Amino acid sequence: MDEKSSVVPTRHIVSAFDEQLDILHELIREMGRVAVRQITEAVTAMTERDGDLATAVMARDSVLDDLERKVEAQTMRLLVLRHPKANDLRDVIAAMRIANNLERIGDFASNVAKRTMVLQTLPEVALARSMRPIARSVADMLELVMQAYDEADDTKALAVRDKDEEVDRAYTALFRELLTYMMEGPVRITACTHLLFAAKNLERIGDHATNIAETLCYRVQGQPLDAARAKGDDTAAVTVMPA
Amino acid sequence: MDEKSSVVPTRHIVSAFDEQLDILHELIREMGRVAVRQITEAVTAMTERDGDLATAVMARDSVLDDLERKVEAQTMRLLVLRHPKANDLRDVIAAMRIANNLERIGDFASNVAKRTMVLQTLPEVALARSMRPIARSVADMLELVMQAYDEADDTKALAVRDKDEEVDRAYTALFRELLTYMMEGPVRITACTHLLFAAKNLERIGDHATNIAETLCYRVQGQPLDAARAKGDDTAAVTVMPA
Repeated sequence: MDEKSSVVPTRHIVSAFDEQLDILHELIREMGRVAVRQITEAVTAMTERDGDLATAVMARDSVLDDLERKVEAQTMRLLVLRHPKANDLRDVIAAMRIANNLERIGDFASNVAKRTMVLQTLPEVALARSMRPIARSVADMLELVMQAYDEADDTKALAVRDKDEEVDRAYTALFRELLTYMMEGPVRITACTHLLFAAKNLERIGDHATNIAETLCYRVQGQPLDAARAKGDDTAAVTVMPA
Repeated sequence: MDEKSSVVPTRHIVSAFDEQLDILHELIREMGRVAVRQITEAVTAMTERDGDLATAVMARDSVLDDLERKVEAQTMRLLVLRHPKANDLRDVIAAMRIANNLERIGDFASNVAKRTMVLQTLPEVALARSMRPIARSVADMLELVMQAYDEADDTKALAVRDKDEEVDRAYTALFRELLTYMMEGPVRITACTHLLFAAKNLERIGDHATNIAETLCYRVQGQPLDAARAKGDDTAAVTVMPA
């Protein structure tokens, strides 16, 4: 637990370090599994108007918060006791960043679940079903990037980045549809506004999966990607007028 | 630039470390100044319908991105060359987290500016002016937390947390007003939707200022705060019906 580790044989240090690193990796993998489940169940709750499932998703958010705290504690332990360098340092720092992204993804999924509770009390909007393919896309992105994490595969990580553009396009299309639908009947405005924010949450989940992909490339390649990727959605420029 | 630093006298090491830490602190302070300016100018652009100012805000977002990259590089340098422990390690890790929050704040301000461009092309909504007090509150929160950072003052940081509840209340009130206003005329729906998202961006800036406050408390006190604080806004549960 102190600087004495520098006098024990090298192989011993490496293996102790690797063991500690494995614990860190497994925490990240576990966060990834929980986050994918949260996305899927939050959108199922929303489209099925299932309040019990929404409540379960909201309650489970604390699991991700706890796991992120464990990642932080493990990161600090590794930095203090092992002062890693080069690849190993990038691995540790990447884990901290990825845990932060996964925790945020959990918050977005939880917010979708929270909006399910109020949508249940409002007239059903058929467009809610359009959330499903977007949710499936972002859950797929997250699964793919977690697989890339597991295999330290930066090519796979880059494929996730490309998928984010599809998600942005689907979100922009849904945004326009929801605005049009609101214009057709003021009674739908509250429900559609919650759907707009829920769709935005899914789009943000896609952004965070992309952030994880970029962190992974940095971890594997040793330098940050150029910032050329189109960032965020295009709905900030959308106008729709009543017919 | 290598492990030889461990053979030079202690006072020399400490002072070199402190110098490197000062560079890190100054980068964070600079990010804080830019972020406050971005919030203020983004909302001025929106309320004054000033497209040139909005364009300037969007262009300046890259300054925060560059500063965050510098913070990361400086953090890695400190971790590799100085392997800090206890207080010093918390200081370095806190800087990395705070830089991430400030970069996100910049993204939210930039998104407000982006929405200004489309709002300019739509009929003016008087409610847009209600953004100003919320923007002033979150800019104040950020200034206060950056002052707390400068003085390593955790009491001041906690005061920022309390202010976030006011911001959430003001945001929820504006959210209701905007929904009501949309119900009164479908022609306002597009503009009001952009205002809803702009207001949400400001509310999120408040959350990030609060995150900075919490990171600061962790840096000063050496342990994370309990998670008892009410998190996020209450609008996920809001319903408004047409009159």
